[in-house]
Amino acid sequence: MTRTVIESKSRTVTIGFDEPFCVIGERINPTGRKKLAAELEAGDFSTVEKDALEQVACGAMVLDVNSGAVFTNKMAEDPRYADNNFVEPMLMKELIARIQAVTDVPLCIDSSVPGALENGLAMAEGRPLLNSVTGEEERLELVLPLVKKYNVPVVAISNDDTGISENPDVRFAVAKKIVERAADFGIPAHDIVVDPLVMPVGAMASAGRQVFTLVRRLRDELGVNTTCGASNISFGLPHRHGVNAAFLPMAIGAGMTSAIMNPVRSVEMEAIRAANLLMDHDANGSAWIGFSRVLDAVKEGATFAEASKAAAEAGTGRGGRRRRRA
Amino acid sequence: MTRTVIESKSRTVTIGFDEPFCVIGERINPTGRKKLAAELEAGDFSTVEKDALEQVACGAMVLDVNSGAVFTNKMAEDPRYADNNFVEPMLMKELIARIQAVTDVPLCIDSSVPGALENGLAMAEGRPLLNSVTGEEERLELVLPLVKKYNVPVVAISNDDTGISENPDVRFAVAKKIVERAADFGIPAHDIVVDPLVMPVGAMASAGRQVFTLVRRLRDELGVNTTCGASNISFGLPHRHGVNAAFLPMAIGAGMTSAIMNPVRSVEMEAIRAANLLMDHDANGSAWIGFSRVLDAVKEGATFAEASKAAAEAGTGRGGRRRRRA
Repeated sequence: MTRTVIESKSRTVTIGFDEPFCVIGERINPTGRKKLAAELEAGDFSTVEKDALEQVACGAMVLDVNSGAVFTNKMAEDPRYADNNFVEPMLMKELIARIQAVTDVPLCIDSSVPGALENGLAMAEGRPLLNSVTGEEERLELVLPLVKKYNVPVVAISNDDTGISENPDVRFAVAKKIVERAADFGIPAHDIVVDPLVMPVGAMASAGRQVFTLVRRLRDELGVNTTCGASNISFGLPHRHGVNAAFLPMAIGAGMTSAIMNPVRSVEMEAIRAANLLMDHDANGSAWIGFSRVLDAVKEGATFAEASKAAAEAGTGRGGRRRRRA
Repeated sequence: MTRTVIESKSRTVTIGFDEPFCVIGERINPTGRKKLAAELEAGDFSTVEKDALEQVACGAMVLDVNSGAVFTNKMAEDPRYADNNFVEPMLMKELIARIQAVTDVPLCIDSSVPGALENGLAMAEGRPLLNSVTGEEERLELVLPLVKKYNVPVVAISNDDTGISENPDVRFAVAKKIVERAADFGIPAHDIVVDPLVMPVGAMASAGRQVFTLVRRLRDELGVNTTCGASNISFGLPHRHGVNAAFLPMAIGAGMTSAIMNPVRSVEMEAIRAANLLMDHDANGSAWIGFSRVLDAVKEGATFAEASKAAAEAGTGRGGRRRRRA
C-alpha cells in the first residue's frame, strides 16, 4: 500500500489510495500576485499569515510555500536582488518561520532555486514535501540528493530536457525514469508524488482522458501517489469552476490522490468532499455532514472562507453553529 | 463498439462509450406526484406536455414515460380502476400520443404492467427504449419476447427473484444472466442497457465504489451500456445535489453511459456537461460554451428551465442571448 507521509512538528498527513484526497493549498505564492510580492518586499507577512490560516480553515491539509518573488524596488538599489538565487533562500526561510508560527499543518517547499529548497528543508519542522524534481538531468542531480539527505517525499513533474510532451506515454516514461533514478539514490517509490501534468482541455480535447489514463497507470504500474495543478484543466474556458468541479471527482475516481489548488473555493472543495464520500473515504459521512453546515452558512450569505473559519473555530472541525435540519 | 440506438420518428439518439452521456428525463411519472396523478385522472395532460418540453429544453435526450398512476376517484366509481392492468395500458397510449404531439425526442416506455409496455410499443414511433426487464424469471419470460418482437433496446435492472443483492458480484451475475437470456431470444448485448442499481451512500458506505467497479466490469466483460437512477446515491444526505454532481462525473469516468434523472436541475446538468467535455465528447467545447451562456442567465436571475428554454428557442441549441464576455 503506497503511503506518502508528510509531517509538521505535530501533525501527520498521509497521501494514499485509501485516504481522503490531500488538498495542498497553493495560495502562498508571489508568482502572479503583485500585491503579495510588494508586501513581501516590504517585509510585510500579514497576507501570508492570513492566507495560511484561511486555507487551513477551508480544508487545506498541506500548505505549499513558494518563494518565487521578484523584488523590483530592491533590485534597483542592489543588483544582487536581480538573482533569485539571492532572494529566494532568504525569503523561503522567513516564509516558513512565519507560517509555522501560526499553523501546524505540514508544508510543501516550492522553489526552482536549489538554495531555497535547502533552506526550506533546514527550516521546516517535521517531514515536508519537496516541490519539485523533474526528469531534467540537472534537476535530478540537484534535487534527488536533497530528498535523500533530508529523507522527505518529493513532487515529480513529468517533463524532461525535451520539454513537456503532449504524448501521455512519453510523460509516463519520464515519471518512470524519475522513479527509477530515485531508486538509485535509495528513495522509495512511495516518497515520489507524480504530477502527470494537466493540459487545458480547451486547447487539447483529450486532456481530461489523458490524465485519467495516466493516473491509473501511474498507480497500477509504478505504485506512486499523484498530484496536479488541477485548475489548469479549465484554462481559457467560461465557468471554469464547473469544469474543475467535474474534473476533480473524475481524477479522484481514476486514482489521483492529491492536488495543489486553491482551497478557498467552495465549488471545488464541495466536489472533493463529495468524492471522498463516494470513494468511501469519509467514515459515516461525518465530514460531508459537517461540510454541509458550512454550505448552509454560505447559502445564508457568509463567504466560504468566513463560514469555514467559523466552523473551524467552533472546534468541531466539521461545520458552524448548529441549526435545525429542514 | 457498443451502440444502443433509440429513435423517434425523426430523431436518433445513440447511447455509447464514445457518445455524450445520455440524459433520460424522469419527470413524466405520476408515482409520488399526487398532483400530476390527479390531473391525469381528470384527463388533463398540460403538465405532461409542459414537463416534456421543459426537460428537452434542459437537455433530456430521451423522455421516460411512466404510466404508474393510481386513479383514486375513478376507483371509487368503477372497481376496474383498482387494477393497474386496466389503468396503465390506456394511460400509456394517451401519454405517448400527447408527448409525441409536442416533441420529437425518442421515448422510454416505463411500466411494470405488460399491457402498458405492449401498448407503448405499439404507439411509440421509431425505436423506443423499453423500461424494464429484471433477472426475475417471470419478467424475463414476459419482457424479452416483446423486446424481440418490436426489435427495441431494453433497460435491464440487476435484481432477480431473490431481490436486490448488496453484493455487487451478485448484481453483476444477474446482469450477465439477463444478457445471456436475451441472447437466447436473439437480442444482442448492445440492445441491453444495464442498471447496476445505485444504493444510497449514506446507508452503504461502499455504494459509490461498487457502482464504479460494476460499471467498468459491465462495460469490459459484457460490452453493455449502462444507466442508473442517479439521485438514489444521495438519498437521506444533506446537500444532495453536491453529492449527485460528484457522482455523475465519477460514474461517467468509470464508463456509465446514461442516467434516468431530472434534467431540470442545473447543478447535475452542469456536472454532466463538464464531464462530457472532459471525456472528449464535446467537439471544440461548443456544447460547454453554449451551456455556459445558460449558466450566465441563471446567475442573472433566470431559473434554469427558463434560461434553457430561451436558449433552445434562440435556436442555436447552445444558450441564450449573446452578451459580451468579461
